[in-house]
Formats: sequence, structure tokens, C-alpha cells
Amino acid sequence: MEHLGKRKWVIAEGYIPKYGNGKEPEFTSHETACILNTGEEKAEIKITIFFSDREPAGPYKVEVGAKRTLHLRFNQLKDPEEIPKGTDYSSVIESSVPVVVQHSRLDSRQAENALLSTMAYSE
Amino acid sequence: MEHLGKRKWVIAEGYIPKYGNGKEPEFTSHETACILNTGEEKAEIKITIFFSDREPAGPYKVEVGAKRTLHLRFNQLKDPEEIPKGTDYSSVIESSVPVVVQHSRLDSRQAENALLSTMAYSE
Amino acid sequence: MEHLGKRKWVIAEGYIPKYGNGKEPEFTSHETACILNTGEEKAEIKITIFFSDREPAGPYKVEVGAKRTLHLRFNQLKDPEEIPKGTDYSSVIESSVPVVVQHSRLDSRQAENALLSTMAYSE
Amino acid sequence: MEHLGKRKWVIAEGYIPKYGNGKEPEFTSHETACILNTGEEKAEIKITIFFSDREPAGPYKVEVGAKRTLHLRFNQLKDPEEIPKGTDYSSVIESSVPVVVQHSRLDSRQAENALLSTMAYSE
Repeated sequence: MEHLGKRKWVIAEGYIPKYGNGKEPEFTSHETACILNTGEEKAEIKITIFFSDREPAGPYKVEVGAKRTLHLRFNQLKDPEEIPKGTDYSSVIESSVPVVVQHSRLDSRQAENALLSTMAYSE
Repeated sequence: MEHLGKRKWVIAEGYIPKYGNGKEPEFTSHETACILNTGEEKAEIKITIFFSDREPAGPYKVEVGAKRTLHLRFNQLKDPEEIPKGTDYSSVIESSVPVVVQHSRLDSRQAENALLSTMAYSE
Repeated sequence: MEHLGKRKWVIAEGYIPKYGNGKEPEFTSHETACILNTGEEKAEIKITIFFSDREPAGPYKVEVGAKRTLHLRFNQLKDPEEIPKGTDYSSVIESSVPVVVQHSRLDSRQAENALLSTMAYSE
Repeated sequence: MEHLGKRKWVIAEGYIPKYGNGKEPEFTSHETACILNTGEEKAEIKITIFFSDREPAGPYKVEVGAKRTLHLRFNQLKDPEEIPKGTDYSSVIESSVPVVVQHSRLDSRQAENALLSTMAYSE
């Protein structure tokens, strides 16, 4: 299949809850960027994290193989630094080839989970 | 009415929970692609499922009649193979005529349901 | 302000739950199309409802005044016919002037509410 | 980084619940516009609020610094007037430089929270 999508994606909302309830890791609170690479070439991804009161962090580097999807949890990004919990942030995702990015959150701070999801903004 | 929408749609997020609570099938956990065909011609749809660690599955074939909507549950796709539960995936939906695709999930793993929905990415 | 938005909008997902819990009307289960008219001219809106197994219903006619918003609950549409509860549907919203449409649902079938929302598809 | 996004954004859905449950401010019911400014120039933002039955309110003025994100809670807007609770509204967000806007709500009126999020409409 050809490479569907765009090379630049933005998620303006970002927040990793400080804690969660329920069986881990299935019900751990998490924020996810689902990145699909439909094409024949590997996607080299660079993520920059923006904050309200300090300089951006990153770039974080990940790869998504040809014809593969990556459901990336932001709390797995460790290098160059962890994203602090309980802090507002936004993210910009740049890829070497067109990909599609969708943003989701599972919030398990309370007994019952809440979910959100939206396509990211692309240009 | 004319055929509104696009011929190619992408849903980067995908996950069928392993179990659910509540009366079936109304409260069975499910992931849905709602496909609307507003036009006078039948839509022949081809769905490809992408995974994180194996080759894509499909194509799955479905039809949406002229001036009809199909709320397709991914757990109803059986041929050429079922989509495994508890596994990250993404989907690409290709149609013979323009259609509109929206992605939703009802998660009933816990006592109270959670919902998400977003328009898919089109090009 | 000028008229922001588009004249044609599509919501592929649609479902009015059969029942709800909680104080009415605040916690009545409902599906909403939020329609914003930012401009100086009244918007004359025509809504067509599509089903999985019968011909479309409508057009339903509503108006949104100049510089006004309408949070339209689908269960308030009565003419030419009510939208059946517990049934999958989709909707097409056509306006005489550009408007912006966002889709939301409050599902109160269980003790705790679930919410979803997404911008509709425009062209 | 260059300025990603657009100068005009619309959120058609808007509703600040009248009350909430849980620890404040983390679990206070709130409606948020997350605004990301990826570029080197400060963003001067003007927000106009539209209602169903009266003239629009605003403009409300906020700033988002260069390479910063602002997760703006609508209930923090006080000047020229507070947005009434329990009232349907919509918002238009205009910026001096391109930004990206995402809409979210945390509804804590009941024991368990509900979440929604979607990219705003841009043009």
C-alpha cells in the first residue's frame, strides 16, 4: 500500500494522570499516540513535547516499521527525559514518511475508567 | 443525494477489549467503524488491518448499500481471519465510491461503560 | 464576524440510547449536533437521517439565528417522523450559509455517564 | 520550529457543568481549549463566545508564549464577563500567529468522571 497520511502531526492536549486504579498495565492511566505506517518504508519519528512554563523537551526518537502500527504510550518516553506526570503538555510528531496519528487517553484515577480519542491535527 | 466523503479512510487506534460486563449485545465491548454511503451507488469496501508485530490482515470485504449506513463492529470480521482481542491494531478502509467513516468504541470491561469517538482520517 | 465553516456536514455515527438514569433533562441520554452560525445571516438547516435497512428520513428543518449556536438533540426531531431509539443511524446536515457542526453524546444508561464528542466531517 | 496550525479555530460544543465531585481543582468539572504555539513568536489570542439566545460575549484576550502550550479552562475567563454555568455555548478562537487548538471536557458531576476530546475546526 502507498504511504497514507502526512509528515507533521500535532496533539495540543496532553496530560499523564499521576496515578490510576486497576490491574496493570491494562488499566494503568496512559496517554497514547497511535501511529500507523501503511507504506513500504520504515518511518523515523521525532517527537517534541511542549510545556506551559519551560522550554520544549526532545526530540524523542521512535521508529515504526513498514506496514506496522505503533501505539506509543507517552509515559514510555525516557530519553532525553521523562515527561512529568500531572503536567499539561502538547506534542508535535514529525515523520520521515507520511503516517497517520490518533490521540487517546485512558484515565483510571477513579474506580471506573474514562476514555477519549481524536485524530491529531496534520499539515 | 450525491456521494459525500472520500474513498480512503484511516483509523490509527484500534483495540478490542478482551471482555465486558452487562447485557449482550448492547453492552458487549466493541469497536465500530460507522460507514455512511449517501449516494445512489452501492459502496464496495475493502478493510486492511495493521498490527505492531506481524504482516497486515485482510482484505476484509463488506458492502454498504445506496443511501445506507453500516455500523460495522470489528469483532464481526471473520474472513480471512478474526481480529485478535487485547491486541493493538489500525485499519485502512477503501471504498469504490466516496463514503464517510467515524470510529467509536464502547468499553464495558468495568461496571460503568466508557465511550470514545472520532472522525477517521481521510484523503 | 464572517460565516466560518462549511455548508455540508456529515455525522456517520448515530444512536439514541433507549433509556437513561438520573435527573431529567440534564442526565437524559441524548445525541447532539452542536451547530454554530458565526455570521450575520440566519442559517436554514436541512437534516437527512440515514439508516441501515430502510430509506432515509427527512428532511428535518431547523434554523440557527445570526451569531447564535444551537445544541440540537436528535430526540427532539419529530417532523416528518421521530428517530427510533436503539437504532443505528447517520446524519447529513446541509445549511444555507457556512456553519460549524460538532457531534456529542451523553450516555446515561448506567449509573455513571459516558461522553463522546468529535467534529463532524465537512466538505 | 515554524508556526504549525491555523489562525482561526471553532469549537461548536460548549457546556460548563454546574457542579462536580472530587478533589479540587484536579477533579473540578471543566471545559478546556488546549492551545499550542510551536513557533518563535508570541500568540495573541482573541476568544468570542456564542450563545443560543443572546448576543456573543467577548472578546476575551489571552496570550500563549513562543514554544508554549496553554490549557485554558473556560471557567477562568472573567473579563469582560464570566461564562454562565449550565448554559450551551460555542467559541471562536482567533490568533495572531498559527496555533493548534484541541477541545476537552472533564465532567465530574457524578461519582465517576467522563471525558471527551476533539480537535477543533480550523480554517
